[in-house]
Amino acid sequence: MTDFTLSCPIPLDQYPQILLAHGGGGKLMQQLIEKMFFPAFKTTNPSPPHDSVVVNLPTSKIAFTTDSYVIHPLFFPGGNIGSLAVNGTVNDLAMSGAKPLYLSVGFILEEGLPMETLWRVVKSLQETALTAQVQIITGDTKVVDRGKGDGIFINTAGIGIIEHNQVIAPQSVQQGDIILLSGDLGRHGIAIMAVREGLEFETTIESDCAPLAHLILEMIEAGVSVHCLRDLTRGGLASALNEIATSAGVTLKIDETVIPVREDVQGACEILGFDPLYVANEGRFVAFVPPNSVETALEIMRAHDQSSCIIGQVTGEGSGMGLVTVKSKIGASRIVDMLSGEQLPRIC
Amino acid sequence: MTDFTLSCPIPLDQYPQILLAHGGGGKLMQQLIEKMFFPAFKTTNPSPPHDSVVVNLPTSKIAFTTDSYVIHPLFFPGGNIGSLAVNGTVNDLAMSGAKPLYLSVGFILEEGLPMETLWRVVKSLQETALTAQVQIITGDTKVVDRGKGDGIFINTAGIGIIEHNQVIAPQSVQQGDIILLSGDLGRHGIAIMAVREGLEFETTIESDCAPLAHLILEMIEAGVSVHCLRDLTRGGLASALNEIATSAGVTLKIDETVIPVREDVQGACEILGFDPLYVANEGRFVAFVPPNSVETALEIMRAHDQSSCIIGQVTGEGSGMGLVTVKSKIGASRIVDMLSGEQLPRIC
Repeated sequence: MTDFTLSCPIPLDQYPQILLAHGGGGKLMQQLIEKMFFPAFKTTNPSPPHDSVVVNLPTSKIAFTTDSYVIHPLFFPGGNIGSLAVNGTVNDLAMSGAKPLYLSVGFILEEGLPMETLWRVVKSLQETALTAQVQIITGDTKVVDRGKGDGIFINTAGIGIIEHNQVIAPQSVQQGDIILLSGDLGRHGIAIMAVREGLEFETTIESDCAPLAHLILEMIEAGVSVHCLRDLTRGGLASALNEIATSAGVTLKIDETVIPVREDVQGACEILGFDPLYVANEGRFVAFVPPNSVETALEIMRAHDQSSCIIGQVTGEGSGMGLVTVKSKIGASRIVDMLSGEQLPRIC
Repeated sequence: MTDFTLSCPIPLDQYPQILLAHGGGGKLMQQLIEKMFFPAFKTTNPSPPHDSVVVNLPTSKIAFTTDSYVIHPLFFPGGNIGSLAVNGTVNDLAMSGAKPLYLSVGFILEEGLPMETLWRVVKSLQETALTAQVQIITGDTKVVDRGKGDGIFINTAGIGIIEHNQVIAPQSVQQGDIILLSGDLGRHGIAIMAVREGLEFETTIESDCAPLAHLILEMIEAGVSVHCLRDLTRGGLASALNEIATSAGVTLKIDETVIPVREDVQGACEILGFDPLYVANEGRFVAFVPPNSVETALEIMRAHDQSSCIIGQVTGEGSGMGLVTVKSKIGASRIVDMLSGEQLPRIC
C-alpha cells in the first residue's frame, strides 16, 4: 500500500503542472501511470496493466453503475472530488443491495493543473477506496487544453456483486411500506455553497459525504426486507421521492416536522433561499421497508447515525399518480414536486 | 429500438441548447433521460432505471475497462465522439479476449451545447452499440458552466465476459512469437488533423474507427493461440510495442518496409512532419501468436482487412531490456522508443 505521508512521486520541480503530453499516450503519461497511479491504486489483483483488467467474480449477479464528478470547488469541508468519486459510485451500487468490489477511474485533467493537486486527489481516491473496501483496478487519463476543462473531472464506474435474492428497486415498493431516512439533510449542498459564496458560520458545516454500502449490507444480513433504496444526491430528498413515487405508481406521505435538519444548515438555507428538501446530500438514503422490518432496520441505521428516523409511508391514495405529499410544520399538507430548474450547479 | 430517422425528441424551439439544469437532478434532467436516453438506449435488460443496474452474467470471469473521450472536433470523417466512445471501450475489452456485453455512458456537457448535437451523438452511440453488439445499460449526465468544458466529453466503461482459458496479456509473450498487424496505419490521427488544420487531399481520409471484438473472438474460436493483443491508439504502433516489450522484458524486431500505410496518409505525414509509427489509430491492433497459429490468424484477419500482415517477431536478443528495433526502408536498423512529448492532443 502507498505510504500517504510521502510527497508527490512526480518531481514537482520538473513537472509542476499537468501538460497536454500527460494524456498523450507517450512517456509522460507512462510516468504518471507508473509513478503515481499504480503505486497509489495497487491492488491484490494479479492481472498486470493492460487495455482492460480481468477479474474472477465470486458470483455472476452483478450491479453496474457510473457517475462523473465535476464538483466545484475540488476541495470542500468534509471531502473533495476524490472522496466524492468513490463514495458516490459505491453508494449507487449499494442502492441495489450490491456489495461494491471494483471501480474504474477516468480523469479528464485541464492543462496547467498543479501536479500537487492531482496527487492530493489521487491519495483521497485511494484512502476512500480503502475505507469503502473497494479496489480501483482500471483507469484512463485524458488532458484537455487550458480553458476547455476545469482542473479535474473524474468518472468512476463500479461493479458490485449481489449475494441475496431481494429485488431492491422501485417496482418492489408496496402500499403500507414505511419510509426511513438515514440522517440529517442538506449538509453537502450547504458545505459547497458556503465555500463558493464565502459564507461563514459559527462552526464549519461539513459535507455528509460517506460510503453507505456496509450499512445497507448489515441491514440485509440482519434479515431486513428492503423493498427500495435511493441515495439523496442532486435534487435532494424531494426529487428522489418523486422518482420512486412515479416509478412505483404510488403516493408517498411524508411528515416534514420529523425530518432532521441541523440548525446551522436550516439557518443557511433560510439565508440562501433554499428548501432543505431539495438540497443535495452525499451520505444519506431513504429505505422503503414493510412494517415488520422497521424495528431492525432503524436499530442498525441508528447505530450509524442516531438521527435516522421514520419520515413517512406509502399509501394507496391517488394510486398510479406518483405523488409526494408533505405535512408541513404548520400542519398543512402540500404536494412536493421534483426540483424545477437548477438550484446548485456542479454540486457533485 | 429507436427510429433513427426521427428528429430530436426534445422540442428544439423550447430547449435549443443544454442548460445547467439539464444536469441538476430535477425535471429537465429527467426529461432528457426519459425522452432522449431511455428510448435511444432501450435494451432487453428488464431492470428498471435505478441508481445502478442489475444484470446476470453468463460467466463470472470478466474484463473491465474505462476510457474518457475528449476528441476535438466532435465529428470527423469516419466517425464522431459517439462511435469512438463505443468502439474504443469495446476494443479495450477485446484486447483481453473478452466478449463485450455492457457499457456505461457518462456525459459531461457544456452549457450552451446545441441540443441537436447531443442528439446526433446519442444516435451514433446507439447505432455503434448495435453494430458492436453491446448494450448501454447505465449512465450519468453532468453539465458544466459555459467555458469550463468543450461541448461534449464522454466516458464509457465496459464489461465483457471471458469464455476461454487463454491468458491474453504481455506476460504470455514468448520468444519466437510472430507479430501481426491488422491493417494500414495512421488514418484516425491524420483524419482528425486534416479537419483541424483544414488540409484538403484528393480524397477524404477517413478514420479507421471500428469495433474489433468479433474479429478477435473469431480467431480464438478458430483455435488460434493468442499470446497478447494491443489496440493502437494514442502513441501509435511504436508506443504500443514499447509497452509490451517493456512489460514482457523482450526485444521486438519490426520490419518497417512491410507496414501498410496508405499513400495519402504517408503524404500527409510528410507534410505534417509525423512518423506513421506514432500516429493514432482506432481500429487497428497487433497480435502476438506462436508460429503455428500464424496461418489461421492471418487468414481470419485478412478476411476483415486484406492489408493485415506479419510485421515482426519476438527475439531473445537483449532480453529483459524491453527494446523495439525497426529495420527501415534503407535497410538500417534503429531503436524505436515510446512517443515523447505530445503529437496530436485530443485525438480520442
